[in-house]
Amino acid sequence: MISTKLTELLGIDHPVVCAPMGSVSGGLLTTAVTRAGGLGLVGVSYGDPAFIDDHVAQAARGGGVWGVGCVMFTFDERPGLWDKVLGYAPPVIALSFGDADQVRRYVASAAESGAHVVVQVHDTEQAAVAVQAGASVLVAQGAEAGGHHKTQATLPLVPAVLDITGGTVPVVAAGGFADGRGLAAALALGADGVMMGTRFALTEESLGTPGFKTSLMSAATTDTVNTRAFDVVRGIPWDTVYQARSVSNAFTRAWTGKDTELAARRAEIEPEWTAAVARDDAAQRALFAGEVLDLVQDVRPAASVVHDTVAEAEAILTRLAGAIKP
Amino acid sequence: MISTKLTELLGIDHPVVCAPMGSVSGGLLTTAVTRAGGLGLVGVSYGDPAFIDDHVAQAARGGGVWGVGCVMFTFDERPGLWDKVLGYAPPVIALSFGDADQVRRYVASAAESGAHVVVQVHDTEQAAVAVQAGASVLVAQGAEAGGHHKTQATLPLVPAVLDITGGTVPVVAAGGFADGRGLAAALALGADGVMMGTRFALTEESLGTPGFKTSLMSAATTDTVNTRAFDVVRGIPWDTVYQARSVSNAFTRAWTGKDTELAARRAEIEPEWTAAVARDDAAQRALFAGEVLDLVQDVRPAASVVHDTVAEAEAILTRLAGAIKP
Repeated sequence: MISTKLTELLGIDHPVVCAPMGSVSGGLLTTAVTRAGGLGLVGVSYGDPAFIDDHVAQAARGGGVWGVGCVMFTFDERPGLWDKVLGYAPPVIALSFGDADQVRRYVASAAESGAHVVVQVHDTEQAAVAVQAGASVLVAQGAEAGGHHKTQATLPLVPAVLDITGGTVPVVAAGGFADGRGLAAALALGADGVMMGTRFALTEESLGTPGFKTSLMSAATTDTVNTRAFDVVRGIPWDTVYQARSVSNAFTRAWTGKDTELAARRAEIEPEWTAAVARDDAAQRALFAGEVLDLVQDVRPAASVVHDTVAEAEAILTRLAGAIKP
Repeated sequence: MISTKLTELLGIDHPVVCAPMGSVSGGLLTTAVTRAGGLGLVGVSYGDPAFIDDHVAQAARGGGVWGVGCVMFTFDERPGLWDKVLGYAPPVIALSFGDADQVRRYVASAAESGAHVVVQVHDTEQAAVAVQAGASVLVAQGAEAGGHHKTQATLPLVPAVLDITGGTVPVVAAGGFADGRGLAAALALGADGVMMGTRFALTEESLGTPGFKTSLMSAATTDTVNTRAFDVVRGIPWDTVYQARSVSNAFTRAWTGKDTELAARRAEIEPEWTAAVARDDAAQRALFAGEVLDLVQDVRPAASVVHDTVAEAEAILTRLAGAIKP
């Protein structure tokens, strides 16, 4: 057992968090990670009422220390959705992608609900804002992550965030982690745990479609690309400082870097694209995945990911300490 | 003392390597790092005969386990320069930035000289080529590095390279390291040591000019930018898969992303730029630095960097192993 400020604060066994991936982290995955002793988070993301009533409800029934992950800037435009989430009384609320004002408002509201409030940050400035807003946990996410991220890499970002926070709150490292080597490295950097996305996306309990899982399994890290194309075609008003890492496919090759043209032709392209996604067309759909693709070689139960990650990290840290000579 | 496959192979005390930074890693810095028990490497880079006769000679006089770092693709165009380097009989030759053919040729020639041959790689394909060519050590360098790099980040790259090499050669992690937290994390990932650039650039023995050191000390990680502008203005035929991370200044703001225009106007712009560099104008000169800028807060002796990095890593690994509960 690896005990950290994160496990102590939340009362969980293992410092392993499943990223709240939209369309991937549903109730089943969340409960599986939580029951294995980690922290499962439902990927509420931009928020769909039916998804919430299905998957957040399922995670709530599963019990234990579970949570939700919400993309702040989209909730401002969806009155009622935030209250719907709070209605399920998640013990943990993870917030990502908001400006300083949104961070302050959503942290305050989430804390008022009694939840532990996790805020994802991508640079030291965002870390300072989140701590001042009252976040109980930070996630320091680097650019090697799948899906949306900013530009700084995890390895130098995590110690820089720790230097800013001075140990006042647990810091979870995210982006670039897929196994016990990563967990051991994160702890060595001073982090209190890891959040893993791609590794948990490729589990039996993940909601990832067959087209998604097959594409990720056959892709290498060098096949990933940073793109805004999926945000533009979906019409989601992402700040352009954030891009999303996806396995390259026909859609990313056609539209990455052509935001203006894609936005202008959206009325024509979006219906076809949406229909392609509905039939799980891997050439068109988003295939969000991180730079850890080279490290993930199987689809297996989420519980084994949690347990193997911790066991491997323990073995590594024990071996390394034993190899130090006076 | 942290013993690894790297320290055993080279017969050095500490798994800490000073990056062979052009215009920064001279004879003084190389000898200081080597005498402190790490591996010092003179930044021969593109190769200047006078620099070699000055700084490589100085490192050779310093003795111990020292080496040189050479940029392969530029040596092909400079007959005689390679033999000049070999003439100083460096115990270690570090090679970077070559295609598969260049890797094979320079590794063979360096090995024939009796040197340990270090090859820097940026993805798993390059790692496989380097091992097959007979490299005795790999450096796996991620995109958070200062100066030239490819796109993958260190944290997921290092374990992926280790999975490819299977432990046949020591692997040194580079890009994103500046202190003992980083060394401990690199060892946890399975690496056999770290190479640090920016941290050693900001030492008393570094050749960095006052304008360079002052600019780096006052800059944050978020002030760095990836650019080809300095390569284009210098007319160095870098493969465009490699960009260089520099602290942003007037020159990067004017020219990053405008390679074609800068190349076309080079005859006009290069003389002014070269004159500005000669007077150490920080608004114009390259200010190569990595994403670790936030972690480097002082300019100090290189030996203290080596010793503090190792001592901090030892303390971290000992503490973490002690915190594991059965």
